[in-house]
Amino acid sequence: MGALRKCGVSEADARLTIDVLVTTDTYGVFTHGVKCLRGYVTRLRAGGLKADARPRVDHEGPAWAIVDGQCALGMVTSVFAMNTAIEKARTAGMAYVGVRNSCHFGAAGYYANLAAKADMIGMAMANDYPSMAILGAKKAVLGTNPFAYAVPAGKNDPIFLDIASSTVAGGKVRIAQTKNQKIPDTWMVDADGIPTTDPFLYPGSASLLPFAGHKGYGIALMIENLAGVLTGTGAMWDLNNWIDGRKDIPTNHGAAFLAFNVGAITPLDAFKNRVDQLIRDIHETPKAKGTDRLYVPGEMEWQNRRAALANGISLPADVVESLRGLAGDLGLTANWL
Amino acid sequence: MGALRKCGVSEADARLTIDVLVTTDTYGVFTHGVKCLRGYVTRLRAGGLKADARPRVDHEGPAWAIVDGQCALGMVTSVFAMNTAIEKARTAGMAYVGVRNSCHFGAAGYYANLAAKADMIGMAMANDYPSMAILGAKKAVLGTNPFAYAVPAGKNDPIFLDIASSTVAGGKVRIAQTKNQKIPDTWMVDADGIPTTDPFLYPGSASLLPFAGHKGYGIALMIENLAGVLTGTGAMWDLNNWIDGRKDIPTNHGAAFLAFNVGAITPLDAFKNRVDQLIRDIHETPKAKGTDRLYVPGEMEWQNRRAALANGISLPADVVESLRGLAGDLGLTANWL
Repeated sequence: MGALRKCGVSEADARLTIDVLVTTDTYGVFTHGVKCLRGYVTRLRAGGLKADARPRVDHEGPAWAIVDGQCALGMVTSVFAMNTAIEKARTAGMAYVGVRNSCHFGAAGYYANLAAKADMIGMAMANDYPSMAILGAKKAVLGTNPFAYAVPAGKNDPIFLDIASSTVAGGKVRIAQTKNQKIPDTWMVDADGIPTTDPFLYPGSASLLPFAGHKGYGIALMIENLAGVLTGTGAMWDLNNWIDGRKDIPTNHGAAFLAFNVGAITPLDAFKNRVDQLIRDIHETPKAKGTDRLYVPGEMEWQNRRAALANGISLPADVVESLRGLAGDLGLTANWL
Repeated sequence: MGALRKCGVSEADARLTIDVLVTTDTYGVFTHGVKCLRGYVTRLRAGGLKADARPRVDHEGPAWAIVDGQCALGMVTSVFAMNTAIEKARTAGMAYVGVRNSCHFGAAGYYANLAAKADMIGMAMANDYPSMAILGAKKAVLGTNPFAYAVPAGKNDPIFLDIASSTVAGGKVRIAQTKNQKIPDTWMVDADGIPTTDPFLYPGSASLLPFAGHKGYGIALMIENLAGVLTGTGAMWDLNNWIDGRKDIPTNHGAAFLAFNVGAITPLDAFKNRVDQLIRDIHETPKAKGTDRLYVPGEMEWQNRRAALANGISLPADVVESLRGLAGDLGLTANWL
């Protein structure tokens, strides 16, 4: 909060941004939580992000809108966009909202869950600076474009999935580095485009690979079209790397949000009961030896969140280091670190 | 054509169904082409499919509709549903059409491409009788729920992807059987829920696994919600196996179709030019040793189709056998086989 306020971000926008990041940490997704804050603050101070920018609907129709982020924080623009999709879906039954001139939006799952809270099925996706090759390519072609969805349930938490289109996130390669372990040859290719098991080539001399070969590649390219091309923002190499690129210019990220108004389409209670039954059916499926429990997507994240709200979060060392760095950047005292 | 007409299917519906199946064969996707016809005819004759049924819009809103297939052929209902989505998207900008009381719809890609032909981004998906386990489960939980999308381009064919949510289709396991080869342990689990490399356990004593572990599982479950739960049709074990199940009762398949009206959202020509540039960028990416060409999703299928239209198709032996069986079932002469 203090860090963003010091950069000129309004209290409401700072509160919203911190809620996205802290919620993501409570899910246990520490790579996309407050760890990212330092990078955003660096951009706010350098001018690539605008502290006082307001996202606005640029043009719209009954079941869609294009939101121009105007270089506001990615979280501010994305919450505005998903709320716009939810409002449109109240009358149209469903809606697509595309976003341009945004920045890294953190974890896609937060926005999908905004729709679930409003009793809608939500989807969220974004493009990113290329860091992912495809088999046969010597260099990155697409970002590890994330995709998330959430489905409201009755007695259960929403079903929710939040995935990157790469086999694994770069963070997993870094873990293999610290453990000095070889990695499966489906994770990345070296600078010659050949699959490698050497984690130390990342990130300088290797590119991640899509999950499941042509399937992850195809999904990433779909996202590039919905979040990048259809919104008129950047696609592929038009984007500026939000971590390592120039800090004083926009990153040109795009995003796409979908909301399906369940109650407009089918009786809401019956829908939720059926989702509960679906969850129960999966839980009650006979289990293999060594498996105590079958999880529905999102269930582990909700468990993590409940534990975090009850007992607090123990932040990993890299997150603490990033926050210390941020405090140092701004000359703030971080007593709590 | 003759086979469907003999079962009482109208000429228009027979023509439409054959177009879906033959187009799929021209893509080179022989598992979902005319090979499926015999199964549909068996259901038409037994009463599980109704030759004279008309799919109808059951209820609707500005940007959505639920179509009741009334047990018509899955292709008839699905073309009707995607056309309904396209019409809705002309005014609303985008639309969702869910389908209930349908049957196996063949290859999802055909319907996504209907939207692309109308200058829209299309998506198509369907649920199916469970044949796919998840890690830790002893038996199938979800169908190998297919997902397809298509994006219209300018000078290029549409980008288009059509995938199952399993690591591989059952057909690939059967190929390993004929070659007496072990399979990777990511393809399926045995009856105890343990990953196996023995292709001969399929299909009786093994279940397929989702692609990329929790990612494919999560996508399959999303489809189950959009195609099964939201439409009020069956989900998971509510469905009847269209191949091995009772032929005289409905299969309860659901499906979901999305259309994004590109020209309503952004200038169409600029969009198409940008898609062309995206395709060019991928083609021009430096290639690894041994790779002559990088393909965009759908490109191989368009190549196959052009070759088929120019030179005809050589149907695989299993397809010919299925057609011979169909001719025998109906007492038809199949001179061309």
